[in-house]
Amino acid sequence: MAKKDTKKSKAAKGAKTPASKQRRRADLRGLLRIPGEEPVDLSSYDAADTPASPADKIDALADTIQMGERLGELQERLFAASTAGDRRRLLLVLQGMDTSGKGGTVKHVIGQFNPSGCRIMAFKSPTAKELKHSFLWRIKKALPLPGEIGIFDRSHYEDVLIARVRELVPLDAVERRYEKINRFERSLADDGVTVVKVFLHISAEEQRNRLLERLDNPDKHWKFSPTDIEERRLWPAYMRAYELAMERCSTDAAPWYLVPADRKWYRNWAISKLLLEHLQAMGPQYPKGDFDVEECRRRLLEEP
Amino acid sequence: MAKKDTKKSKAAKGAKTPASKQRRRADLRGLLRIPGEEPVDLSSYDAADTPASPADKIDALADTIQMGERLGELQERLFAASTAGDRRRLLLVLQGMDTSGKGGTVKHVIGQFNPSGCRIMAFKSPTAKELKHSFLWRIKKALPLPGEIGIFDRSHYEDVLIARVRELVPLDAVERRYEKINRFERSLADDGVTVVKVFLHISAEEQRNRLLERLDNPDKHWKFSPTDIEERRLWPAYMRAYELAMERCSTDAAPWYLVPADRKWYRNWAISKLLLEHLQAMGPQYPKGDFDVEECRRRLLEEP
Repeated sequence: MAKKDTKKSKAAKGAKTPASKQRRRADLRGLLRIPGEEPVDLSSYDAADTPASPADKIDALADTIQMGERLGELQERLFAASTAGDRRRLLLVLQGMDTSGKGGTVKHVIGQFNPSGCRIMAFKSPTAKELKHSFLWRIKKALPLPGEIGIFDRSHYEDVLIARVRELVPLDAVERRYEKINRFERSLADDGVTVVKVFLHISAEEQRNRLLERLDNPDKHWKFSPTDIEERRLWPAYMRAYELAMERCSTDAAPWYLVPADRKWYRNWAISKLLLEHLQAMGPQYPKGDFDVEECRRRLLEEP
Repeated sequence: MAKKDTKKSKAAKGAKTPASKQRRRADLRGLLRIPGEEPVDLSSYDAADTPASPADKIDALADTIQMGERLGELQERLFAASTAGDRRRLLLVLQGMDTSGKGGTVKHVIGQFNPSGCRIMAFKSPTAKELKHSFLWRIKKALPLPGEIGIFDRSHYEDVLIARVRELVPLDAVERRYEKINRFERSLADDGVTVVKVFLHISAEEQRNRLLERLDNPDKHWKFSPTDIEERRLWPAYMRAYELAMERCSTDAAPWYLVPADRKWYRNWAISKLLLEHLQAMGPQYPKGDFDVEECRRRLLEEP
């Protein structure tokens, strides 16, 4: 995706063709993908940026709704195909700092799908039982089945993020996990899982605003904890951990996408578009029936 | 709910006040509830009926969308309350013949909730493993957690429906299940689960039309199976099994509601309203924060 210093060269700015056409043309996967095995410098990405977006918020909201219909159709095809043996599915992995919008993405983007085909898991701190197993154990149990859209709100990446920042395990153990993750995600891809990993990039300033909003509204106090303030002191360490995770684990089998998330409308639009592009590339097809349509019709009509 | 022969006395007909007001006033739970321990005669219920509905389809669609917003708010409150120890949750049980709209209800009604708080389970024929356990074993594993909305697309009632009609187990074993179900549902209610059981009532004629529609559209062939036609021959036996299930298992702890389902717009409206009434009666509240709001605000603002 475009970095701060190349802002002016972006497709959405200085446009010669209408924004709507450019938007449809742009492949957001290419724009937002983090190249693997290269150092990542998060400070070079503007969290308020809106790469390849529609002209304004109103257009983006309308476009998101339009994409929602298409997403629902493709999801139905994916599910239908699974009833005929197609093992493919999609797994959206959402990561980001507190208030970055993981929950909002599930509500507004995943809310556009048929809920019966979605398998959503919000990962919390591991339980005592989970800690007795490999860090991937609980992840494997939550994977989408063929035909489903899986959504991870946090994931196995916490085991190289908070685990690294808070030193929950020795550093050499953390270091070994990146390669384990890559092998695991490679095996998912081999098994028909399209893995879409999204880092919701918000600025520390925007997080402060969102935390203050929660304090201002008593109906949102349940979402707030004073530890949220303490975690902010570790912001640079978290950013470094995210940089390493994306540098080491953005692979062809399971690339990382960086979605600027200071603007909620852009976040919802961009993730909808990323999902749409991936589902279109999968191209799921309705299976053909293996029965005699005319005979079935006749039997139904001939009934008493 | 109103029966065929009392149609004219219904609230929605012969109205003296505007339909919209009547609709809000009417308690749909009372209208649609099947009284337990009384014989049920399904032939006396018109599947195309629209008890207490808005004036027309357009009004009903608009009202359903409005209720959707309210449902989302109440769901958030329910979930928020669970973070402070409230164990309550809601379980919607959907039963009905093929094409009666169980899947459509999940898509259109449950689709109005935040998907992250929904736990949906579509029960198929039991697996070999499931058959080794009590018929309630797999049901108990799929229950909603505190704060969640659970949805069963088919349920433990299959074990007194198809099990009875197809004689999958001896009749005396089926007979013992009704009381087991009542005890189980009583225990759910005691544990904070509001159980809402809905029978989607369609006519055999409407089912025929819906099956023909599936045949007419190749994109819907995956939903069709020739066995659907054979099952229709058992229609009277299924109706009898439903009558018995509702007569014996419509209890105060977990009542049955009969929703006429020949009209999809009415089905979606009525189930939305039933859910709304139940959630409003539960009256979940946002928990109060147990931290010093002013101090947190000050700390956030004082940060570098």
